[in-house]
This record gives sequence, structure tokens and C-alpha cells, in this order.
Amino acid sequence: MDKEYITDWFRGLQDRICAALEGADGKGRFERDAWERPGGGGGLARVIRRGNILEKGGVNFSAVHGETPAQLLGHLQPELGMGSQPGLRPEGATLADAPRPGPDFYATGVSIVLHPYNPMVPIIHMNVRYFEMSTGVRWFGGGIDLTPHYVDEEDARYFHGRLRAVCDRHHPAYYSRFKAWADDYFYLKHRQETRGIGGIFFDHLAPDASTSAEEIFAFVRDVGDCLAPLYTHLMRKNAGLAFGEPEKQWQSLRRGRYVEFNLVWDRGTKFGLDTDGRTESILMSLPPHAQWEYDHRPEPGSRERATLNWLRKGVAWA
Amino acid sequence: MDKEYITDWFRGLQDRICAALEGADGKGRFERDAWERPGGGGGLARVIRRGNILEKGGVNFSAVHGETPAQLLGHLQPELGMGSQPGLRPEGATLADAPRPGPDFYATGVSIVLHPYNPMVPIIHMNVRYFEMSTGVRWFGGGIDLTPHYVDEEDARYFHGRLRAVCDRHHPAYYSRFKAWADDYFYLKHRQETRGIGGIFFDHLAPDASTSAEEIFAFVRDVGDCLAPLYTHLMRKNAGLAFGEPEKQWQSLRRGRYVEFNLVWDRGTKFGLDTDGRTESILMSLPPHAQWEYDHRPEPGSRERATLNWLRKGVAWA
Repeated sequence: MDKEYITDWFRGLQDRICAALEGADGKGRFERDAWERPGGGGGLARVIRRGNILEKGGVNFSAVHGETPAQLLGHLQPELGMGSQPGLRPEGATLADAPRPGPDFYATGVSIVLHPYNPMVPIIHMNVRYFEMSTGVRWFGGGIDLTPHYVDEEDARYFHGRLRAVCDRHHPAYYSRFKAWADDYFYLKHRQETRGIGGIFFDHLAPDASTSAEEIFAFVRDVGDCLAPLYTHLMRKNAGLAFGEPEKQWQSLRRGRYVEFNLVWDRGTKFGLDTDGRTESILMSLPPHAQWEYDHRPEPGSRERATLNWLRKGVAWA
Repeated sequence: MDKEYITDWFRGLQDRICAALEGADGKGRFERDAWERPGGGGGLARVIRRGNILEKGGVNFSAVHGETPAQLLGHLQPELGMGSQPGLRPEGATLADAPRPGPDFYATGVSIVLHPYNPMVPIIHMNVRYFEMSTGVRWFGGGIDLTPHYVDEEDARYFHGRLRAVCDRHHPAYYSRFKAWADDYFYLKHRQETRGIGGIFFDHLAPDASTSAEEIFAFVRDVGDCLAPLYTHLMRKNAGLAFGEPEKQWQSLRRGRYVEFNLVWDRGTKFGLDTDGRTESILMSLPPHAQWEYDHRPEPGSRERATLNWLRKGVAWA
């Protein structure tokens, strides 16, 4: 199982997800915007705008390669014990200081964020990715998390139940480990709020004596494949629910929080913007509109207040 | 000239600026929201919403003190040569590792961001601040920058001309040095755009053999005092200009860029959110509404395109 095989599978996943979402939306179409990375590789952004249900969203595929960015080597060293490997830069070193050539990397993945019109339909995010370096290091990462503007407990249990079932097919410890990881990752420290009801998150899943690359990739494929049925179910179930101006207002404020998470805390976004990643692909995650109101506090007893009460770590949804 | 004197002057500046802005707005009033910092000190947020001209804005005063945050000591060490001082933490050390007690700090300042309704009126930002530590270190910082939704060349020359006059009264090198510093600071690397037409920015201005603390503070006072006449002039001049839906749309997209700068690149915002600063005061800089559109590109020859062409470093406005 080499990187071409993984890349092809991710490319196919993008197609299947776009087709499923177009089917559920009934009007919007995912446009195609292919791009090249100056340092090597490129991607295909697929963007939906002003659909029936989906107001703005992206399903992005990329496969990039080249010399490993210094910022990434700095981050990886403690974890990979690469400090003494020849050709690797010491943390804090700049490109100009570095012995050349550094190792090459190859990274491929699919990233999705979907923002619906109807505040009763949640925002969803999914990412699956594979990374390898010419040093022989390789790993998978990914995650899915749901950000309802209004938390519906039945939907939340359904969502987490499906993710638990996916995880349980591969390892009995995966769900609890990756659910806790999502709670910690999708967290706005400055608001003391989780982004939404969480989901699963995992990174640097590398083959070892107990788990082969094939087994990890089988899990990653299952995660990728669960997005479309999960989200089209929520689209169909909730897109007809009534809402008015107060709910749209609240949706805009929650979208503001989504912006805050992505721009302040999301490591992938920060890394991408800091290493000359493709800005339009990275920021496709931002909502069509957002609002900020000074010190906004929902009324006690309101549905908005009830939603805030769910935005905490450690809720046992499944 | 001690910290109480500086603090009182900043407190008075907040009052005078709010009064001048209320006068020019004609309807909006700056509400008062006093807050305390758990570690010591506090502030007074003054917030305007839904005025005649000002849609959302804040004029914030704060005076906080306590044990110096580890994150700050880490940043300061190379600059201040504090590496070997007893009681200071090595970079990367956590609070738990640290020898106690660290030095105390005292910081006071006024921060302003104003978002007008009319896209023909620019967004303005101003900050003046003073910082000292029990180690004897003290400095001033500050800046003013203007972010027009549509760059008006006459307004831009007026704005920079006034800033140059303020700087020139204190040091012949200040304007060119601080103008270049603003170009570098208020820059969205991931967009290769400046935030607006810049202004002046300066930090860590410490007294030395050639310049006393009194002289630096006199400059900082002049910077603080020029905000109200500068901005009320632009409010009165432009708030009556006609605009329609396309201009409001463009304003929303430019406000999205303002959000991107503040959340991704602004060091003050990042530091505040990372050190448990008061979130509502830090994020008062965010606009009331913002929009994001995938890969939006203004038409060649349009006024929007002309504005983008001005958003670069090194324009000689004055």
C-alpha cells in the first residue's frame, strides 16, 4: 500500500462525497478549482455556494510534496526523536542556517467544512490525511466534528453513536481515546467553550508492532466514508425545520465563534497560513457571514443558553 | 513621572476620546463596563453600538499588574538580556518549573477600534500603552492605523500628514521609522496585503541616554491626542457619502480581512487570548458583521480593485 494508492482513494472519496451532498442538497453544485503548489503537487478545491441547504462549503483534495518545511521539522523533532539525524534542522534554525538537503515529504488528504442556511442544520467538519517523509516516517490523521447552532440531543447521540460504531469496528479503545482528543482539540480556550459537540480527532497514527499501515488506513477509510451518510441524514432531517430572524442572528454569532476557533486555535490553519499554504483552500472553512456582539449573553432558560451549556468537554453522548 | 501619573493620563484620554466621538456621532453613547483582573488590576471597557455613524466600537482603558506571565518573560529574554537574572524563567519553562517569585509587572493603556456603518468611512485603530517590571525595565508602545474600505487618496494623505506632523514634533526619524514599522506590523502575510493604508506603530520605546521617559511619554500623549480630531474629521467628511448594496457587500468582505488580521497575526490579540486576558475587551476589535466568499476577485478597473492596489507596503503618503 503506497502513497499512490492512498492518494487515489482520497481522490475518489472527494468525488463520492460531493455527489452525495449534491444529491441531498438538490440544487447546489460543487464547482472545481484545480491549483498547483509552487514547491510540488497541488489540489482540487470543490466549492459549493448558495445551494438549497448548503450556503457555503468546500470538499478539498490535495496531494503535495517537496522539501519538508522547517516549521514542520521543528515541531516533529521531539516526537520523532529526529534530533540527531543528519540533514534535519535544529529547532529554531532557519532555512538559511540549515544543512541541505532536508528530507522530502508527501502529504495527501481530504478536508471538508459545510455551512448550511438553516440554523437547525449543524455545521460539519471532516478531515482525513496521510503524511510520509523520505526518512521512512509515515502516519495518518483525521477527524470529524459537528457544530450545531442549536444542540439537538437526539442528533448528538446519533452522531456520536455512528462515530463510536466506526471506531469500534477497528479498535475497542479508539472511540474513547479519539472522542477525548476531539474534546481537547476543538476547544476555544478564550471562551472556555468547545466548538460544538465534538466527535473524533486523531493524529500521527503510525504503524507499529501491533497495528499495520493497512489496518490504520482501513480505519481512516471508514471515517472518510461515514461523512456523507451522517451529514445527508442531518440535512434531510432538519432542513425543513422552521426558523426566524432570532435563530439566524444566533447562527451568525455561532459562526463568529467558528471563525475564532479556526483562526486562533486550529493548528492546521495556522500552520498552513504560516507556511505559504493555499489561502483560499485553507480559509474555505470560514462561514459566508458572521457576527460579533459585545458580551452577548443568551437569556437564562432560552434554547441558546441550553446550547451553550452543552459546549463543554466530557459529555458522554454515546 | 510614575505609573500613577501615566495611568491617570490614559484614563483621562479615554474620557476625552469618547466625548469627542459621541459629539461627532450625534446619537450613539459609549456604555461603561468595568471589569477586574483576577491576578490584579482591571479596566473600563467603553462600548458604542448602533450609533448614527459608528456601528460598533470600543474605547478601552486598562491598568493591570501582578506576576509577569511566563509567556511574556519568554518573549522578552533575548531582547532584555535577562537570561541570567535570578527569578526569571528559562524560555519554554512552565509556571510549575519556575523558581518563585518572578518579577512583577504593571501595564496600562488605551485601545480603540471603531467600525462605521458607511463603507466610505474607514475603520480606525489606536493603541497607546506603558509597561514596567519590578526589575526596573519600562517602555512605551503604541500606534494608529487606518483601514478604509475604499481608499480615498486625499484622506490617506491627510491621515499620514497628520501623523507625520505629530512624529516630527518629537524626533525627525520617528515618522519614517514608525511608518515602516506599521507597514510591517499591519500585514496579512497569507493575503500579501496590508490591513489598510497603515499609519505608525512603535513598541518597546525605552528611555536611554538620548531620550528620557518624559520625552517618550510626551510623544505618546501626542499620538493619543491626535485620534479624536483625525477621526471625527473623517466621520464628518464621509458619513454623508452615498453607498448601496455592492459597497456594503465589499465592506463585509474587507471586515472579514480585518478579522483575519486580528485573529491570525495581531500579537497583542494572540498574547491576550493565550494568557487568559479579558476576551470581550480583546475581541471588541472585531466588526459587527463580516463575510467570506471563496476566491473573491474584484473586477479590473473597479474601485474595489483600486483599493486592493493600495494595500501594499511602502506607499509614500506623506
